[in-house]
Amino acid sequence: MYTLGIDYGTNSVRALIVRCADGKEMGSCVVDYPSGRQGILLDSRDHALARQHPGDYLVGLEKSVKGALAQARRRRGFSPKKIVGLGVDTTGSSPIPVDARNVPLALQKKWAKNLQAQCWLWKDHTSWREAARITELAAQHRPQYLARSGNSYSSEWFWAKIWHCLAVDPQVFAAAHSWVELSDWVPSVLAGIDDPLKVKRGVCAAGHKAFYGDDWGGLPDKEFLALLDPQLADLRDRLYERAYDANEPAGRLCMAWARKLGLPAAIPIAIGEFDVHYGAIGCGVAEGTLVKVIGTSACDCGVISAQKQVPDIPGICGIVKGAILPGFYGLEAGQSAVGDIFKWWVEVVCDGDGALHRKLAAEVSKQRPGESGLLALDWNNGNRSTLSDQRLSGLLLGQTLHTTKAEIYRALIEATAFGARTIIERFKEYGVPIERIVCAGGIARKDPMLMQIFADVTGCTMLVAGSTQACALGAAVAAAVVAGAHKDFPRAQKAMTSLDKRQYRPNPAAQQAYHRLYALYRQLHDAFGGLNRAADLAPVMKELLDLKAAATARA
Amino acid sequence: MYTLGIDYGTNSVRALIVRCADGKEMGSCVVDYPSGRQGILLDSRDHALARQHPGDYLVGLEKSVKGALAQARRRRGFSPKKIVGLGVDTTGSSPIPVDARNVPLALQKKWAKNLQAQCWLWKDHTSWREAARITELAAQHRPQYLARSGNSYSSEWFWAKIWHCLAVDPQVFAAAHSWVELSDWVPSVLAGIDDPLKVKRGVCAAGHKAFYGDDWGGLPDKEFLALLDPQLADLRDRLYERAYDANEPAGRLCMAWARKLGLPAAIPIAIGEFDVHYGAIGCGVAEGTLVKVIGTSACDCGVISAQKQVPDIPGICGIVKGAILPGFYGLEAGQSAVGDIFKWWVEVVCDGDGALHRKLAAEVSKQRPGESGLLALDWNNGNRSTLSDQRLSGLLLGQTLHTTKAEIYRALIEATAFGARTIIERFKEYGVPIERIVCAGGIARKDPMLMQIFADVTGCTMLVAGSTQACALGAAVAAAVVAGAHKDFPRAQKAMTSLDKRQYRPNPAAQQAYHRLYALYRQLHDAFGGLNRAADLAPVMKELLDLKAAATARA
Repeated sequence: MYTLGIDYGTNSVRALIVRCADGKEMGSCVVDYPSGRQGILLDSRDHALARQHPGDYLVGLEKSVKGALAQARRRRGFSPKKIVGLGVDTTGSSPIPVDARNVPLALQKKWAKNLQAQCWLWKDHTSWREAARITELAAQHRPQYLARSGNSYSSEWFWAKIWHCLAVDPQVFAAAHSWVELSDWVPSVLAGIDDPLKVKRGVCAAGHKAFYGDDWGGLPDKEFLALLDPQLADLRDRLYERAYDANEPAGRLCMAWARKLGLPAAIPIAIGEFDVHYGAIGCGVAEGTLVKVIGTSACDCGVISAQKQVPDIPGICGIVKGAILPGFYGLEAGQSAVGDIFKWWVEVVCDGDGALHRKLAAEVSKQRPGESGLLALDWNNGNRSTLSDQRLSGLLLGQTLHTTKAEIYRALIEATAFGARTIIERFKEYGVPIERIVCAGGIARKDPMLMQIFADVTGCTMLVAGSTQACALGAAVAAAVVAGAHKDFPRAQKAMTSLDKRQYRPNPAAQQAYHRLYALYRQLHDAFGGLNRAADLAPVMKELLDLKAAATARA
Repeated sequence: MYTLGIDYGTNSVRALIVRCADGKEMGSCVVDYPSGRQGILLDSRDHALARQHPGDYLVGLEKSVKGALAQARRRRGFSPKKIVGLGVDTTGSSPIPVDARNVPLALQKKWAKNLQAQCWLWKDHTSWREAARITELAAQHRPQYLARSGNSYSSEWFWAKIWHCLAVDPQVFAAAHSWVELSDWVPSVLAGIDDPLKVKRGVCAAGHKAFYGDDWGGLPDKEFLALLDPQLADLRDRLYERAYDANEPAGRLCMAWARKLGLPAAIPIAIGEFDVHYGAIGCGVAEGTLVKVIGTSACDCGVISAQKQVPDIPGICGIVKGAILPGFYGLEAGQSAVGDIFKWWVEVVCDGDGALHRKLAAEVSKQRPGESGLLALDWNNGNRSTLSDQRLSGLLLGQTLHTTKAEIYRALIEATAFGARTIIERFKEYGVPIERIVCAGGIARKDPMLMQIFADVTGCTMLVAGSTQACALGAAVAAAVVAGAHKDFPRAQKAMTSLDKRQYRPNPAAQQAYHRLYALYRQLHDAFGGLNRAADLAPVMKELLDLKAAATARA
């Protein structure tokens, strides 16, 4: 028996075929989205805007699944007929305006070129004003909503985006019969569901991004939504009543798509979850295990038994029952940019490519902690956790006339590691056990130097997921559970997931140097992040010079 | 009648032959120093170190003067015999350890390769510990010394450098019979003076860098110097009793150098001054006129009549009677790096050359104030005025994932303009009249975009000196005065100096935008510079985004 996991990332979609018995990966295929710049529709007048054309998802779906099947067919014993289920994960919150037949407006000629009618990609930050207003209103009227969302509503999330659409293009808003998260929409298409009200919505997107809570009756009540705008209150009736965890299938594969993809019809489709949530499952998430998916941005996922009392944790983006694993609270935090910051430095500023990335990495690996005298904040794309403020920006400090691009590259890596440490400390502070960290994502596998810096900065041993395709694998694990190939998630995870043999253990000397640098990072973090409104920053530059002198003396 | 001005810059020496009647430039020649990296001896283990080989000064002297003469000879009516005097300006404080015959130790085989035995170039900052200690001791025991030096003694200055030499290489210190400023040493060589005690010292270097004051008996008293180190007190006897302004010649051209250079013997040599001081004269400095020499760093010079009561101005590097023009107090302030910051960005970080400088400048000229959302501090080489702290470093804030190298380039230019404004405001605050600003230096002539930004940021019309060689011209003016070709400096300046026809007037809209950005710059400046030990920096990033939105909206 095999299952199929389909993972929609920011720039491409990947299909993966996995053997249920042991997680063996039989075939996979990645397809880049054809539209925009690296799959993203941009607006040169507004850097906060990031959209995607929904048609790209369908093109990518067909190509990637066929590609994976073609590869798997070359393996002994495999046949597409033996695929017993499939699962889908996507970025999010990435809501799509759809018509009454569940067709995205952007697939209609009238709206095809309208940026507001596209999928509002997770990293779109145009709705920061709306997000701030939602935070304000919720703090005043529904503090219970906010407490589960890190005390702040983000411009990356469902209601802020839809409200912003209403503000900037009321015609698109009016034309949209409903809005469907990408993670719900792809499974619904595969299931042939042609009414948005019948789309099975995942609690992962609903709980983390749309203030959904079973204990307060699902989505936010109309009275609250009317405080935003009466039209949002009206929209509530055209969304959904209930959202589901991964024990519930999203539907069964419809004949049309079964034929198109060459798969057995009527196999179960797992409920859609976000990429990092299924990624966490593919990395073996469990109580005590934090999963960190490090790519363009980073996402941290943990779980705590739903039997326990879970505290509200400020600055942690979400605490949602069933969001990752059924029977557990899913906890999510994140860093708005990690790989994107290095990409910015190397490709946008230094005009380089992969070769320059490698050259700088080689130089960086020779540098010692503190030696450059530099310190950076990792906020080029705002700060998701623990400040929940998209209107923060980057900072670099300590430059001399001799500072090199490689030193700045390392300072940026260190900044993302300091950001990671801030999140880990927040979790621990609120009693969430973190006994091990399992990492996935391109950077976790390809950049041992970064992984060692993360280990040295956080003081945690960094493990690496066995699969290079942890998100798609997690979706395949969920498919195996809904297909009955395994009895439950823990058993499916045990059979189908593994760890890489590489481990990164903290080096005590580096850990000590980074402890001092982290204290300085926190001074900048707290001052510019608004936690300390009377900061004395005069010593920071001097202490960096002292650390530089100490690092040079040790050499 | 003609005079010869010889200008020793950081990387090269220039000789200029000028007609006394009208300042017409008859011939000039620039010679790069042959040693080190662009003429500077560096130490890869210590970026604070910057030395020069004294032999380079002699090689450069002969080549540049001969080159200028060769050029002038092609002009009708010129003959070397008509040269009636010469003047020398140099960087400083750049002290040289010499033996009892006024020969630099570095010209002796034993010391030739010893970095401590070379000329300690002005921008050497290795003695920051000593400088801090001198500041402390002077504050406690001789506050009157410190008050004339901006309340802080710099690591760029005479006593700190010599004390640091004693600390790191007592053998060099012991071998040095005396120490002579480069600006005094070159005239003394030309005059054939072979005893350091007989070298005529200029009050410019003495007063600005060595705590010299006629009103307290010359150099610091032995009791004070003994607080530093008894050996420095002993050294006082082997330095000088009196220092002179530019009304006093440094000597007359000796036969040996007259022959070597092909000049008339026994013509008067003007007293040596620093490049920017003679540069100020070459730019027409007078009461109400601030001269700004903008090159690798920037130096601001003003004068006030010695008849007036001059206040001590905190953070202004020096207030010295006779330092620039006889009969006036010379006021000096400076920015530790201007062109060097752009050079660092383009050449060190972006691996570019002159072509990239031009490409970025073209892009920058299309940007509007505030549009990038960036803000920088101009402290990559420390801050000379008004914080007097070499242990400050660079800062860049507001980066997104879209920030370009051209935007950063502009932010660095703006940072240097904000630094310039800080100095102008300090002067005005203490009653020094600034009615016009005359600029000189490579950047002032070659970079209209930077000049316009300086005008917009400072709100002052920026004028440009008529000569491209203002420092050498000023030295030639001084030579004309000591040779009797003009009766005094004002008359010599009137005849021999001029203004370029280009003027940069502030643009009111840009001025307004920069007014807001400057307020943010001051917040960072005051927080990291230690003037505000309880700063609320949380609004800074947000205000930059607001300014960015406003600039984009205006577009």
